[in-house]
Amino acid sequence: MNRLEEYLSSHETSEMHPSDIAKILKELEDSDLNEAIKLIPKDLVGDVALALPDRYFDFVVESLSVDELSYAVTELESDDQLEFMQELEEVNENVASQVFEILDEEDKQEITKLQTYGEEEAGAYMQLEVFTAKKNEIVQDVIERFAKLRRANELENIQNLFITDNNAKLQYTIGLDDILIFDFSKTLEQNIELSEDSFEPKSGVDSDNIKTIVHDFKQYDLSVMPIVNSYGILVGRITSDDIYDIINEQATEQMYNLAGVDDEAEEDYEILKAGKKRATWLSLNLFTAIGASFVIGSFAATIESIIALAILMPIVASLGGNVGIQSLTVVVRQLALGEVSKREAKRVVKKEVAISIINGSLFAIIMGIIAGVWFNMPLLGVVIALSMIINFFVAGFFGAVIPLFFRKMNIDPAIGSSVVLTTLTDVVGFFSFLGLATYILL
Amino acid sequence: MNRLEEYLSSHETSEMHPSDIAKILKELEDSDLNEAIKLIPKDLVGDVALALPDRYFDFVVESLSVDELSYAVTELESDDQLEFMQELEEVNENVASQVFEILDEEDKQEITKLQTYGEEEAGAYMQLEVFTAKKNEIVQDVIERFAKLRRANELENIQNLFITDNNAKLQYTIGLDDILIFDFSKTLEQNIELSEDSFEPKSGVDSDNIKTIVHDFKQYDLSVMPIVNSYGILVGRITSDDIYDIINEQATEQMYNLAGVDDEAEEDYEILKAGKKRATWLSLNLFTAIGASFVIGSFAATIESIIALAILMPIVASLGGNVGIQSLTVVVRQLALGEVSKREAKRVVKKEVAISIINGSLFAIIMGIIAGVWFNMPLLGVVIALSMIINFFVAGFFGAVIPLFFRKMNIDPAIGSSVVLTTLTDVVGFFSFLGLATYILL
Repeated sequence: MNRLEEYLSSHETSEMHPSDIAKILKELEDSDLNEAIKLIPKDLVGDVALALPDRYFDFVVESLSVDELSYAVTELESDDQLEFMQELEEVNENVASQVFEILDEEDKQEITKLQTYGEEEAGAYMQLEVFTAKKNEIVQDVIERFAKLRRANELENIQNLFITDNNAKLQYTIGLDDILIFDFSKTLEQNIELSEDSFEPKSGVDSDNIKTIVHDFKQYDLSVMPIVNSYGILVGRITSDDIYDIINEQATEQMYNLAGVDDEAEEDYEILKAGKKRATWLSLNLFTAIGASFVIGSFAATIESIIALAILMPIVASLGGNVGIQSLTVVVRQLALGEVSKREAKRVVKKEVAISIINGSLFAIIMGIIAGVWFNMPLLGVVIALSMIINFFVAGFFGAVIPLFFRKMNIDPAIGSSVVLTTLTDVVGFFSFLGLATYILL
Repeated sequence: MNRLEEYLSSHETSEMHPSDIAKILKELEDSDLNEAIKLIPKDLVGDVALALPDRYFDFVVESLSVDELSYAVTELESDDQLEFMQELEEVNENVASQVFEILDEEDKQEITKLQTYGEEEAGAYMQLEVFTAKKNEIVQDVIERFAKLRRANELENIQNLFITDNNAKLQYTIGLDDILIFDFSKTLEQNIELSEDSFEPKSGVDSDNIKTIVHDFKQYDLSVMPIVNSYGILVGRITSDDIYDIINEQATEQMYNLAGVDDEAEEDYEILKAGKKRATWLSLNLFTAIGASFVIGSFAATIESIIALAILMPIVASLGGNVGIQSLTVVVRQLALGEVSKREAKRVVKKEVAISIINGSLFAIIMGIIAGVWFNMPLLGVVIALSMIINFFVAGFFGAVIPLFFRKMNIDPAIGSSVVLTTLTDVVGFFSFLGLATYILL
């Protein structure tokens, strides 16, 4: 609490940053949060709340009145307004609808408009606040109009001017740095025609998948992108700070999917939701583990006569699984980053197989010797060595092929591929080891 | 080839985008690459090469003369110059030094300066090209000076003006949108004093860890950040496009580390380097797998009398491993994203333990019944159920505690934590299952 009070008293409101306040709040005990939230300048509360992990929204709702919450919403930009309202709904639908009710018409309309977009659509991420100019406006007039809005705090963080034709269709994007070298007495279009530069806008469509938008930001080094609707009419913009978050979210989703965790359920307030999703995944694992046990069961007689097999068999399966996960992770990630073109699929498979065969041979020799010496049975060493080479090969080959195949089928390569793979390496591991043992040792 | 020729002939050079050319190149067969690279406009070759995966650098070096390569370098911004030269060195040190030799003095100095930074330092990622103004300059003069440089193509992609005092120390950052509403006849400082806004720069220090910089970009929604040296003197800037790449690289590193893969080795031209690093990791796995086998071996007599134990034991270990990896992945990622403050460690552990106990009980009952029925031995069902509850608990608890402990020790929580964890779940899985079996069934 003291640190928060200190921060608030030592800064002008215009100098405070919501993230700094959020950071201090994160270090507080839960019991101090309600009182602390009440201290935050009311025009910053919205941004502070959005800078905190989701679970803090409970405290925000508890600490503030409906009027205060509603004021917090009006102070946000449109994309943040939507996010704030969505968080609010998750915590308390009743409060959310009260807050919505007392917003002014414009805010209500904007939030409603953004809500129509699906969560994968670019529109869901855009801000509706954009500054546009018509191409036949004089530059000097545009700047004066801009200055007026800017002084009235209606515009923030503007780097580009979006130029439309008379039907509001987006025609050009001009950086403010270009505006500064324009002839202020001429129209925008005259300046554009005189310039050697290209002002063709790199724009996105509101119904585009957000992944395409992120890809274009990276591809063309953008810091802001105008968004148009299907008629080419400018409807909003997406900025770099959204992209940072989305890139991180996408990476989180991949990591979680590979581990059998659902990213959205994990963020939920209720532990049970996360637990349920994890259980779904574990059911699959249980099912395949039982499958692998059946394989072992079919060699029960062999194991009964050579108990060393039971002792060694997890090694073959475990290393095979690890080798497979190595290949799988690399290929899944390279696919997600767009580093593997369709043409390169073969090269990727070759690389993974080559590495797995080299490492397979190496570890086969090492483990073969260890097993042979440990149980004083040279042939047992041969058996485990052969089965490891087979299992490493399978792991490397399918570690590359499974995600590539998933991509071809338009399935997300991160989802489910690891369970398919480890099932394979378990089954092949136990089958090759126990099968070879039956054939060679008995 | 045809698509490339088509693209090149249908666009003015000023309208071409290096990434679009790179995209077309990626779809070409390797045998066509050398010829294709020769067709690229020489001033874009550098950017195209950097937009391609590393392995294409071989072809770039093969296709172009030393003079052409050197020209490509001069056309790049300083941070890209450094990257280009580093790639060049990896492919052919001899060519690289020839190319460096014929660069002009300024480029040589800039590259050499950037090279002095460590890979983790902010300085290694910055561009040296910045536009600065002194605080006592008249705005009109600044704009004219800016326009002159901009027209001479000396400046690109400028969104902010960096204002220094007479000793080149950074004092303010002003967005171009703010400049537009300034009084052009006054000095910058006079305007700043008249304004209510804060122009305090969010800057980084060149020796800062790049992770701190990325964190600040996200925290403060920046699209560009000025970089100063330890004396506060402005030395360069980092832009949003660098941040996109770094966020992705950091996520890749985490995913790879969790899977036991080294991100830098994987990018190398030689397959062997990646294979070697993977083998190091597998050695650890082999070592721990042998440890788990020792545990099994110590119960050899029990297994010999009840062969069903050998059939079922991998299920306990495998599910435990999966449960642990779920917890571990979530905690490692949350830590990396800064979602878990030091104070919250307990909350995280509680959550993971709660989920693992709930799921553990569920799967224990299911598997207990299956095992009891399968082998017609109700007590075997009790044994596997108990050992699964124990192993799920261990998996959830240590899945949370291991990365938290690593962070406390200032070790990257992604590195090595998964091998520690699966060793635990294997050992505890086998020990609890076979131990309980010995105690209850024999």
